[in-house]
Amino acid sequence: MEKSFSRFSVHALAATKRFAKLGLACSAILSLLFSLFAFPVNAAPADTVPQWGVYEIELKGPTNENPFLDVQLSAVFGNGSKNVDVPGFYDGDGIYRIRFMPDTQGHWQYETKANRWELTGKTGGFTAVPPDKGNHGPVRVHNTYHFAYADGTPYVEIGTTIYNWLDTPEELQEETLQTLAASPFNKARMLLTPQPTAYKKNFPPPRWPFVGTPPHDWDLTRFNPEYFRHYEQRLGQLRDLGIEADLILFNPYGKWGFEKMDAAGDERYVRYVVARFSSYRNVWWSLANEWDFLRVKTEADWDRLGSLVQQCDPYNHLRSIHNGSMFYDQSKPWVTHASIQNGVAVQSAASAEMYRDVWCKPVVYDEVKYEGDGKVRWANLSGPEMVHRFWCGTIGGTYVGHGDYFTSVEEDTWTSFGGKLRGESAPRLAFLRKILEAGPADGLDPIDKWNDPDTAGQAGEYYLTYFGKETPTNWVFQLYKRGVTDGMKFKVDVIDTWNMTITPVPGEFVTKKKDNYYFVDAQDRSVPLPGKPGMALRVTYVSGGSGNADANAFIDPNLPANQKAKPH
Amino acid sequence: MEKSFSRFSVHALAATKRFAKLGLACSAILSLLFSLFAFPVNAAPADTVPQWGVYEIELKGPTNENPFLDVQLSAVFGNGSKNVDVPGFYDGDGIYRIRFMPDTQGHWQYETKANRWELTGKTGGFTAVPPDKGNHGPVRVHNTYHFAYADGTPYVEIGTTIYNWLDTPEELQEETLQTLAASPFNKARMLLTPQPTAYKKNFPPPRWPFVGTPPHDWDLTRFNPEYFRHYEQRLGQLRDLGIEADLILFNPYGKWGFEKMDAAGDERYVRYVVARFSSYRNVWWSLANEWDFLRVKTEADWDRLGSLVQQCDPYNHLRSIHNGSMFYDQSKPWVTHASIQNGVAVQSAASAEMYRDVWCKPVVYDEVKYEGDGKVRWANLSGPEMVHRFWCGTIGGTYVGHGDYFTSVEEDTWTSFGGKLRGESAPRLAFLRKILEAGPADGLDPIDKWNDPDTAGQAGEYYLTYFGKETPTNWVFQLYKRGVTDGMKFKVDVIDTWNMTITPVPGEFVTKKKDNYYFVDAQDRSVPLPGKPGMALRVTYVSGGSGNADANAFIDPNLPANQKAKPH
Repeated sequence: MEKSFSRFSVHALAATKRFAKLGLACSAILSLLFSLFAFPVNAAPADTVPQWGVYEIELKGPTNENPFLDVQLSAVFGNGSKNVDVPGFYDGDGIYRIRFMPDTQGHWQYETKANRWELTGKTGGFTAVPPDKGNHGPVRVHNTYHFAYADGTPYVEIGTTIYNWLDTPEELQEETLQTLAASPFNKARMLLTPQPTAYKKNFPPPRWPFVGTPPHDWDLTRFNPEYFRHYEQRLGQLRDLGIEADLILFNPYGKWGFEKMDAAGDERYVRYVVARFSSYRNVWWSLANEWDFLRVKTEADWDRLGSLVQQCDPYNHLRSIHNGSMFYDQSKPWVTHASIQNGVAVQSAASAEMYRDVWCKPVVYDEVKYEGDGKVRWANLSGPEMVHRFWCGTIGGTYVGHGDYFTSVEEDTWTSFGGKLRGESAPRLAFLRKILEAGPADGLDPIDKWNDPDTAGQAGEYYLTYFGKETPTNWVFQLYKRGVTDGMKFKVDVIDTWNMTITPVPGEFVTKKKDNYYFVDAQDRSVPLPGKPGMALRVTYVSGGSGNADANAFIDPNLPANQKAKPH
Repeated sequence: MEKSFSRFSVHALAATKRFAKLGLACSAILSLLFSLFAFPVNAAPADTVPQWGVYEIELKGPTNENPFLDVQLSAVFGNGSKNVDVPGFYDGDGIYRIRFMPDTQGHWQYETKANRWELTGKTGGFTAVPPDKGNHGPVRVHNTYHFAYADGTPYVEIGTTIYNWLDTPEELQEETLQTLAASPFNKARMLLTPQPTAYKKNFPPPRWPFVGTPPHDWDLTRFNPEYFRHYEQRLGQLRDLGIEADLILFNPYGKWGFEKMDAAGDERYVRYVVARFSSYRNVWWSLANEWDFLRVKTEADWDRLGSLVQQCDPYNHLRSIHNGSMFYDQSKPWVTHASIQNGVAVQSAASAEMYRDVWCKPVVYDEVKYEGDGKVRWANLSGPEMVHRFWCGTIGGTYVGHGDYFTSVEEDTWTSFGGKLRGESAPRLAFLRKILEAGPADGLDPIDKWNDPDTAGQAGEYYLTYFGKETPTNWVFQLYKRGVTDGMKFKVDVIDTWNMTITPVPGEFVTKKKDNYYFVDAQDRSVPLPGKPGMALRVTYVSGGSGNADANAFIDPNLPANQKAKPH
């Protein structure tokens, strides 16, 4: 497929599959050195795989009984300095697979463990080679509130929502991929199980995750491998586009009964999904959408399921749980970041910031209402309002998710089924992403918390001020003292967030201490502004200064230095 | 003293002391029936005490060794259905006391326990009689986010801050009480230990909590009873004015070393203070002001100290811990309500509400910056801005604290030392309190969370909408569907929050369903508004309606009923 956007352009899974065929003989020989058993694979693993690529072991095994239920399979991968337990899974037709994503380069060996003779004690090895361009590894939490890829490359989340794009005709799925490729989005939020309504009212889900017949006649002990293989194909395509897949394991919308399984069923489902998908480096686990609307599960169930994902995912992918109107306790250890629904919170940077202080984790406002045509009030944002909310979240030191919900036939929207974007926000979000990717690697944090909520950055280096719906005609150059000394030179750009222009202000600004709190320009310069909403300023350090900036200001931003020991 | 404000006008401690003398003979006789020991009291306890008043046992005991350190004393009070363990304390000069606040009426008996013969095994009893007018008992959490007195009377917190009003000349303390009596404030936030700076630079703290010499020559194993007796006198006077005392046990400002005691010292201090003060029904425990600026204690220390207060206070008074720039985990079980510093949070009702969803406890914004003359930026609020923040907090379903910080001599402000109020907000806060006390007993909660953050109340009964800095000239009568049916009649008042006027809108408004979300007036009436900031509306149910209101709307305010099972 064509990619007109995104610098993340690897085809690792495809590459892995090519290597898989070439590596057959080599691996088989190595394997014989370690094993007394015949090596009954019909497609042997690759001998080299890129770091954070997928190494796959394929084994032939039993088809009697219920392989999903009765066969336990895993492998231990070791590189001499650590061992990783990796769960395997049954892929149908007597084929069992174990997939491994190496997080370090060099030689890895493995040995399988199973409760069946045909599957246990298989050994082999491969070499993890440097990653291809655009493969930065999985996304991790970075600098408490932010994200970065495993190789250290910053990840600036600009997410979208396409809940059931895989429940549509194949050509629509291809169109969705094309739309994504041309879009700014580097995360897609999607359900793992089918949507209750049919696409355009006449295209029911083409595949089902379990064996059986819709709506309710399922054998919940037997997965449908074809469903998951198709999902994997799309996961790999998203990965190759540089798009993280925020996979929603459970949701309250289904009418098929998948959300009402018993505890054993939930556990089988989670283990199967994690075993299949976790080697895809672009996977994030979203335990639920609107968890509190799914009344058949208790908070204790979610504690258990969240911890289960944490325990059985060898790679510690990001994990979250998304609220309806009530929050799950985001401070629980298994939650890596807060995935929040609250559109009001991102109507100002000041409020967007508030949850950061509570949880000390990244906050992603995954649902802030959608850009849409207003038939329902959770989908009635104008393009400018959607863009405004992204900027507010950004300046609050958080991240925001997009939705596009323009209805012609019921539910035939981007956010339900993919296809084409119809809103106006996406190009402006691309513009925002470009700005952020050129910004500080440690992300944007409040500079002067609770005093100047409209400015974020890294003190002394970089400042982004967003005026929101205010319409100033002038901004007096002024920086909070943290990280600033006399004589520092800064350049200033005026940013129009809607018209997507960045206009440099001529000359440089030189800092001069004004009072206990602030530095201004030595010549008291200010910056003219056009008096319209949606404007921003970028202030970037150029050179100069003594380096003796007030580090204490970080500790207690409310207090001047001479007031530190007073009640306030 | 004169009281020109407050309906809470009891003099219970004074009453108790009168009874104490009268009850001497009676109690002594009863006591002999239960005890083989002589009854060595020199002032016997009262035979009747009001419910939530103070019953005090006074005992003569040893003066050798260190009575604060070596003598353990407590009593078990029982009324036949429950027993309460009550700690005692040494009050100097060979006098030991145990104070008990009965929470139910009827007969109570006690027996003392001690590790000294002179103090142990003393028995007696008294009758708790109905409380005097204005005595509603201690304040408790009510309806998750709100407060009520133990007798069920709603408590609408309008707090102020007078950190060290007891470190001043007695006449200034009396003036402070007079100011409070004429003020709207029903909570005062105050430090338990002296302020580091002297009042008007020339009046050092007149008393010290420990025996020794300032600044650092203290015997931290010996308390100074006179310090605490004076504090108790003022606590009682606050109680009699209907003012809750939010006592700050530790703070980061002191230069006397009281905040740097070892763990054993901290525990002795907490136990002594709780033993002395907890029978005052108006006590709240604030473990610390700006806990995170007190660098000598760890989070584990606070966990321990908070739990210690919870464990040794027989009455379960409200407990909190107030932040500087970093939050303590307010979800810990010992924390009864969140005591928050964050002025930005109450710049809109939408943001004020946000922490409620996280902690599901009452949120009190005890510091939102102070009304003041702006020499420091945490004390530069105008009167209108202070009042605005109270209204935002109120409509967010939370509570706000006041400060008044106009400096002539350094630190001679109301908020540091009491005296007179110099700001303009207090009368407007009295106006607000009057409105709230006439409002729903269950407090104000968001009506249509995250959609209409500027309205709070109780659905179908009472709505308070605050327009803040917006300047509308008209409000179309419209209510969210929760609790509303066709044909309900409401009356509307226009409120000017600064000029303190309540103007009824002529006639009644009758509800008519408009769409999936809202009801409007049957005649599409609207309410004219004066186009200035600080306006509010009160909508109160009068009569009518079918009673078949949409209860589900409570569950999922974002969704119309026919969209309940769709991802959004």
